[in-house]
Amino acid sequence: MTVTTPKGFRASGVAAGLKASGNPDVALVVNDGPDYTAAAVFTGNRVKAAPVLWSQQVLKGGVIRAVVLNSGGANACTGTQGFRDTHSTAEHTAAVLRSGPKPMMVGPGDVAVCSTGLIGELLPMDKLLPGVTAAAKALTADGGSRAAEAIMTTDTVAKNAVAQRAGWSVGGIAKGAGMLAPALATMLVVITTDASADNETLDAALRAATRVTFDRIDADGCMSTNDTVILLASGASNAQPTLAELTAAVTEVCHDLAQQLIGDAEGATKHIAIEVAGAASEADAVQVGRVVANNNLVKTALFGNDPNWGRILAAVGTTSAAFEPDRVDVAINGVWVCKGGAAAEDRSKVDLSGRDVQITINLREGEMSATIWTTDLSHAYVHENSAYSS
Amino acid sequence: MTVTTPKGFRASGVAAGLKASGNPDVALVVNDGPDYTAAAVFTGNRVKAAPVLWSQQVLKGGVIRAVVLNSGGANACTGTQGFRDTHSTAEHTAAVLRSGPKPMMVGPGDVAVCSTGLIGELLPMDKLLPGVTAAAKALTADGGSRAAEAIMTTDTVAKNAVAQRAGWSVGGIAKGAGMLAPALATMLVVITTDASADNETLDAALRAATRVTFDRIDADGCMSTNDTVILLASGASNAQPTLAELTAAVTEVCHDLAQQLIGDAEGATKHIAIEVAGAASEADAVQVGRVVANNNLVKTALFGNDPNWGRILAAVGTTSAAFEPDRVDVAINGVWVCKGGAAAEDRSKVDLSGRDVQITINLREGEMSATIWTTDLSHAYVHENSAYSS
Repeated sequence: MTVTTPKGFRASGVAAGLKASGNPDVALVVNDGPDYTAAAVFTGNRVKAAPVLWSQQVLKGGVIRAVVLNSGGANACTGTQGFRDTHSTAEHTAAVLRSGPKPMMVGPGDVAVCSTGLIGELLPMDKLLPGVTAAAKALTADGGSRAAEAIMTTDTVAKNAVAQRAGWSVGGIAKGAGMLAPALATMLVVITTDASADNETLDAALRAATRVTFDRIDADGCMSTNDTVILLASGASNAQPTLAELTAAVTEVCHDLAQQLIGDAEGATKHIAIEVAGAASEADAVQVGRVVANNNLVKTALFGNDPNWGRILAAVGTTSAAFEPDRVDVAINGVWVCKGGAAAEDRSKVDLSGRDVQITINLREGEMSATIWTTDLSHAYVHENSAYSS
Repeated sequence: MTVTTPKGFRASGVAAGLKASGNPDVALVVNDGPDYTAAAVFTGNRVKAAPVLWSQQVLKGGVIRAVVLNSGGANACTGTQGFRDTHSTAEHTAAVLRSGPKPMMVGPGDVAVCSTGLIGELLPMDKLLPGVTAAAKALTADGGSRAAEAIMTTDTVAKNAVAQRAGWSVGGIAKGAGMLAPALATMLVVITTDASADNETLDAALRAATRVTFDRIDADGCMSTNDTVILLASGASNAQPTLAELTAAVTEVCHDLAQQLIGDAEGATKHIAIEVAGAASEADAVQVGRVVANNNLVKTALFGNDPNWGRILAAVGTTSAAFEPDRVDVAINGVWVCKGGAAAEDRSKVDLSGRDVQITINLREGEMSATIWTTDLSHAYVHENSAYSS
């Protein structure tokens, strides 16, 4: 059900004291092979955390043997000292994995690093490095869910997923409850598979999967400095799925994790799917969906159970998508409250009492469509993001 | 102190029953000449309300004798009936002005129309037209502030401004408390002057003024369907200021009104100025300021009195402006909490207890700068925009 479901992986999660709560905050996922191929996508933010800059370099080497992750600090906007700290973390991880009970031939250049937490503060290395030592000792073949727990920040539940196939599987863990925005990898995600695939195949599968999953969720329009999705392949199953088969399985795991992320987004009371149909292009559909998902007036209306389709049309009007204002149709939970850009069915027919909301926007310009998933804007969101630094 | 401060104008505001509260909801501003020149800027939203489409046509005629405004309904997304209603409103206004105690030579093509309120519902014409008749009867040479009251929606105070010059003046009224966003005129604004100026001069002055005032405020990133700023010149003072003099006076009034709009933005507890300095271009400075102003995580942090500069840098990183992440400096209320992209002065030195917040972002790339004004994201914003339809 997690990153250790596929064969060839071990994982762990331990408490190193980075979090004031004393909860687990250091995770380790290692690939025992026989393959060590990998792919990754990173945040589109130009302000990248030190671990992102490091892991981008590691990925170029073509081999990732281990991923070390910490919550309790993002190590972003921390200057040269921050980068040195990430480097030290990778070196220390490699050293303890080489000297452990099951010695691995691993150098710092084979270790990806992920961090999450407050931006702008140096990590307490005196706690992190002993934490990595403990995490290495705690590695087990069923430790994936403990790794998932150790990367939680404002998440209320740990996030695991798996796609089972005949003879092979794909597993994943994720963290992320805010700062979810399009055009990025999204938060921290580690995905594993015991299929055998080269780096190019993994990269193609991962990019195809994230494009229609993590890139189509948007909790608050805010793009993080640390977002990373890493896919590791061990080849331990000896299975060699086609690119299409691998892409389907990775997409299944990414979709599952993405829905868990939106389902647990900070302060959300609604799980909203915005389907844009009848678009002239997929890019138009995605653009319209994102703009509506990102509109505070739409989000507060849905929090208030108000089927305010006028705010949806006003948001659509700020895009460059092909559409005519007097042709657009909008349905909320199946009720076509707007037809041809004007009021249609009675808005009082719309039942918004449940958590799930389905908005359909038909641009009536073409045959393309896309769905963006988002949340409402609630008092709890304001509270979570104003009451303490995160 | 208002649109009737310049000579040659009369105005009024009456209650026509469009608002459930019974508060004034129909306003009229008329130009008694001898000049009837005018300029206007409209929302950049592609979904434009019927009155915007109408007023754009009127403006092409080069003469505006009267502006009729209503709150209590936006007449947006109302199809062909909505446009017919706007046309009827202009025809009725012209008719009552022609037949009044001080008959004006005015046709419907000389009457601009502005509406504000809920999107997607037809206006109750049986109430609006008698309201226009009453407003015409109530016109006085000191009625500007009553017109300002009649266009309020969720505004808590009426907004008036004036710029006095030797022998001439510029006056203005505005409404708008939410859906304030860049790249548009902003909400409903009527500006008058008794200076003499042709349409081209008025247009140049108005565009120069709005570019650095209304276009640089952003309450919630949401662009309205109805925003209109109209400038009317009566020539009644016989003064003929230069373009530079006129621009300065119109800018003074627009700046005053824009600050009143941000000061009264829905649910705001902070009045935030984001100054972007050291930019390679003014466009870069504006882009960075807007993105930071529009970031929910920055806005909630400031609501919580948290000098969370990391969220500011993360927002800057999503722009295409010229900057290097390791060169940016950020000050909050005068404390340089970030230097060279990393922590500098102790964030605990930042005093955020007051309403006014000054954020300075130095990109250290050039000599250009711009300031964007915005608000925080508070519980009251969520409440105002979720508790009832608007």
